[in-house]
Amino acid sequence: MAKMKTVVSLGHEALGSTTLEQMDAVKHTAKALADLVEQNMQLIITHSNGPQVSMIHKAMTELRRVYIDYTPAPMCVCSAMSQGYIGYDLQNSLRSELYSRGVAVPVSTILTQVTVDPYDEAFYEPQKALGRYMSKEDAEQEQRKGNYVTEVPGKGFRRVVAAPKPIDIVEIDAIRTLSDAGQIVIACGGGGIPVIEQNHILKGASAVIEKDSIAGKLAADLAAEQLLIFTSVDHVYTGFETDHAAPITEMSVAQAKELIEKGEFGTNNMLPKIEAAIAYLEAVPTGRVIITSLANATDALKGKSGTLITNK
Amino acid sequence: MAKMKTVVSLGHEALGSTTLEQMDAVKHTAKALADLVEQNMQLIITHSNGPQVSMIHKAMTELRRVYIDYTPAPMCVCSAMSQGYIGYDLQNSLRSELYSRGVAVPVSTILTQVTVDPYDEAFYEPQKALGRYMSKEDAEQEQRKGNYVTEVPGKGFRRVVAAPKPIDIVEIDAIRTLSDAGQIVIACGGGGIPVIEQNHILKGASAVIEKDSIAGKLAADLAAEQLLIFTSVDHVYTGFETDHAAPITEMSVAQAKELIEKGEFGTNNMLPKIEAAIAYLEAVPTGRVIITSLANATDALKGKSGTLITNK
Repeated sequence: MAKMKTVVSLGHEALGSTTLEQMDAVKHTAKALADLVEQNMQLIITHSNGPQVSMIHKAMTELRRVYIDYTPAPMCVCSAMSQGYIGYDLQNSLRSELYSRGVAVPVSTILTQVTVDPYDEAFYEPQKALGRYMSKEDAEQEQRKGNYVTEVPGKGFRRVVAAPKPIDIVEIDAIRTLSDAGQIVIACGGGGIPVIEQNHILKGASAVIEKDSIAGKLAADLAAEQLLIFTSVDHVYTGFETDHAAPITEMSVAQAKELIEKGEFGTNNMLPKIEAAIAYLEAVPTGRVIITSLANATDALKGKSGTLITNK
Repeated sequence: MAKMKTVVSLGHEALGSTTLEQMDAVKHTAKALADLVEQNMQLIITHSNGPQVSMIHKAMTELRRVYIDYTPAPMCVCSAMSQGYIGYDLQNSLRSELYSRGVAVPVSTILTQVTVDPYDEAFYEPQKALGRYMSKEDAEQEQRKGNYVTEVPGKGFRRVVAAPKPIDIVEIDAIRTLSDAGQIVIACGGGGIPVIEQNHILKGASAVIEKDSIAGKLAADLAAEQLLIFTSVDHVYTGFETDHAAPITEMSVAQAKELIEKGEFGTNNMLPKIEAAIAYLEAVPTGRVIITSLANATDALKGKSGTLITNK
């Protein structure tokens, strides 16, 4: 039986925030992913990198403070490092988990760049908050360096960067070739390293790409049969975090669009997932999207949990 | 005409030492590599990572000093980050160079782990010097942390780690699949992330693998037709750095072994290259190895420069 081509999007929960947390988290994640492999799925895995890229960016900044002969590392370089770091831990733990179950499928990570449009409106008003909360003084220093910051009432200030839409996955050929050969591929980590194309040259951009956005694009480009978006909640909700919160077990693209219109989904968390689902389902009308937690994956695949989105 | 399967090993010169140096160096390197592609070679590229992994290791150490809630990043994690960083810059610049010449071959980087033997004698007496020179006080602190250091007379102290022999390239299937599909692959960066296999689990090892050693292994595993080792000199020499230094234009494996016996090659620079050449040529008797500088690559391929090693 042919394997079911499945793009998996892993959220923050799947990886933890520090090196020690990640070492532990990837073991649990690997078990959930290995369950999917044993259910005859051909996996292409993408993941978030928020805490990791933030950690690396801080480390490179501290380095420069201590050793003045080092030049600054731009965000695109930190993003590449985070793909190396997370990819290593993920491929290592997934391979180990599969081998311990007697399943010998190669797993590897492709470093991935993703082109973005320099005229994307996101560059004019950066909105994606990154890293920790800062004091007012630190925030003002960031602004003097030309960076954008945002104030979160009662919590402090955070740096914000642009989150432009992905245009092309530069290494899509390599990802497709490995997947078509029946191998498991980890790609587009952290949304991919954002680059801007200018006369054949790809320049690193000071931006991040939403990992869900790239997951939708990846699933569309590969014509995947399903897209599994793993997050911190078991379902998508209407009225999330209100007293009338209600889980959605199933919805069509049309219904999803209506709920977006009504402002039902949080701009920084659920909305990008629903938009990614819609983009993929418009490219692959026969596809299906499940949004749930990693712990609930198997139940969700049986229709017992999670939110299923299709074209109906 | 079928392309000539060629493993390329890039030394320190090809990448520079800092983020700014690397940005510049990879452009020159990309031109030399694109020349090889235009000479109908199917490239599998590996590279050193000494200054880069040392930079990242320092950064992660500084991070921990400032933000105590971060846990230390072991050498294997820093190595994975360096593969991400260098792979990104290399694949980006090589792709750009090829596109500007109208050549559209996909280029990507596979994060690579390499198994080593926990009983490798290298672990009993670590000899590979890493990073900068330290004061006596810093060296003593390193020793208290359980790390090895070595004194270089007149220069100071350096940390040393084990450089065990590579056993298996864990992601070899992915590398082979991409190469067989006619794509350019960057792999085994910095010699690969060293891991020790214990009951199907691969644990990161506190070690580095010689990049030339892994280049020989990669060329053998892929049955490459040639192995090009790029370094800082145009030729291998007998009597290197003496008043009777003489370039070697050609030698057989048997001659190379004789010269090793006579102690002609420096333990930390040329010897690992010659040993890698021999290991590959014993696995692929029809193969050929060229050792030269990147600037001399085209001349060397025409037999006008460099050192050619074959089984004769």
